[in-house]
Amino acid sequence: MSFSPLIRQLIDALRILPGVGQKTAQRMALQMLERDRSGGQRLAQALARAMDEVGYCRQCRTLCEEELCPQCADPRRDDTLLCIVQSPVDVFAVEQTGFRGRYFVLKGHLSPLDGLGPEAIGIPELLGRVAEGSFSEAILATNPTVEGEATAHYIAQLLIPKGLTLSRIAHGVPLGGELDLVDGGTLAHALAGRKTITL
Amino acid sequence: MSFSPLIRQLIDALRILPGVGQKTAQRMALQMLERDRSGGQRLAQALARAMDEVGYCRQCRTLCEEELCPQCADPRRDDTLLCIVQSPVDVFAVEQTGFRGRYFVLKGHLSPLDGLGPEAIGIPELLGRVAEGSFSEAILATNPTVEGEATAHYIAQLLIPKGLTLSRIAHGVPLGGELDLVDGGTLAHALAGRKTITL
Ligand SMILES: [Zn+2]
Ligand SMILES: [Zn+2]
Repeated sequence: MSFSPLIRQLIDALRILPGVGQKTAQRMALQMLERDRSGGQRLAQALARAMDEVGYCRQCRTLCEEELCPQCADPRRDDTLLCIVQSPVDVFAVEQTGFRGRYFVLKGHLSPLDGLGPEAIGIPELLGRVAEGSFSEAILATNPTVEGEATAHYIAQLLIPKGLTLSRIAHGVPLGGELDLVDGGTLAHALAGRKTITL
Repeated sequence: MSFSPLIRQLIDALRILPGVGQKTAQRMALQMLERDRSGGQRLAQALARAMDEVGYCRQCRTLCEEELCPQCADPRRDDTLLCIVQSPVDVFAVEQTGFRGRYFVLKGHLSPLDGLGPEAIGIPELLGRVAEGSFSEAILATNPTVEGEATAHYIAQLLIPKGLTLSRIAHGVPLGGELDLVDGGTLAHALAGRKTITL
């Protein structure tokens, strides 16, 4: 017995954050209580609103509280170029390279062993987006892992017959890594060095 | 431009947490949104309640939403032994060693250059607590830093004339460290090896 109930609840709740263990959660809770209550209140409100109101962009399926995300709503982007990623955080990573085409965000990668097939990761929505769009090229920017490669290959087989040029990010992306942990320069290089996929 | 406004606000708000930079805040925000919205809502509520309702224990001045904290409310503790620490997190650290006396929590350490004198860190409240209590020994468990030592010395000069035995945690606490980063074994050793202070 040591912390009062509300402080204990706060410490427990902080532990849902990735990478935050008991000791870190304690420091976070006490630091906010001792030094930054208004910051803690702002965080509480930002969390409550985001958890409640953020949904998915109707067009690219990234996380977003509006009908269209900032990337889809922007009229000045290249409508012939589609970048397919497997997570909203990857949109941010690719944006940092200066890419200014459109996006489609899968819900992760194909994972047959976990029962995650094409429907589960949003392939029907991807096909719908391609059908209503005017894309000439699709860049497959799924993670450079075995599952990411398999997902890219699966999508290539669906989209090449529809007349699109398909490419895969290539040079510089380390194997077995996660896309959003790659530095911007490496990712820019990988985008520039993308290779066309043939069946 | 990349994340929608609510997600951007959440990422900014998460950065008030100690040790959380832009990249970590992004991962935290997106992971909660994608995988654990109910955990995010619980965190929002725990934060709002704690920031709003947690005050200070009337007796020991630790963070607490009740009038008395769990340590002060417990009738089975040793009322002759007072442990003086400089932060609520230190109460938790000392509790882990098995200490079962009472506490008094200062608001940090004396810092004349920052204008933090005896009133600012709660010395008058400490004297009040000692006057109304029945302590025979006070353990000075301020941090083993120059400021913590100076604060301990200042308190010793006030309390020894009141007939208390004053001791300072000693063996095993590394110089220049922070008390709550010390492992429990080292701290238990430091408590056991405390030394009486004479003027
Ligand atoms: Zn969108
Ligand atoms: Zn108390």
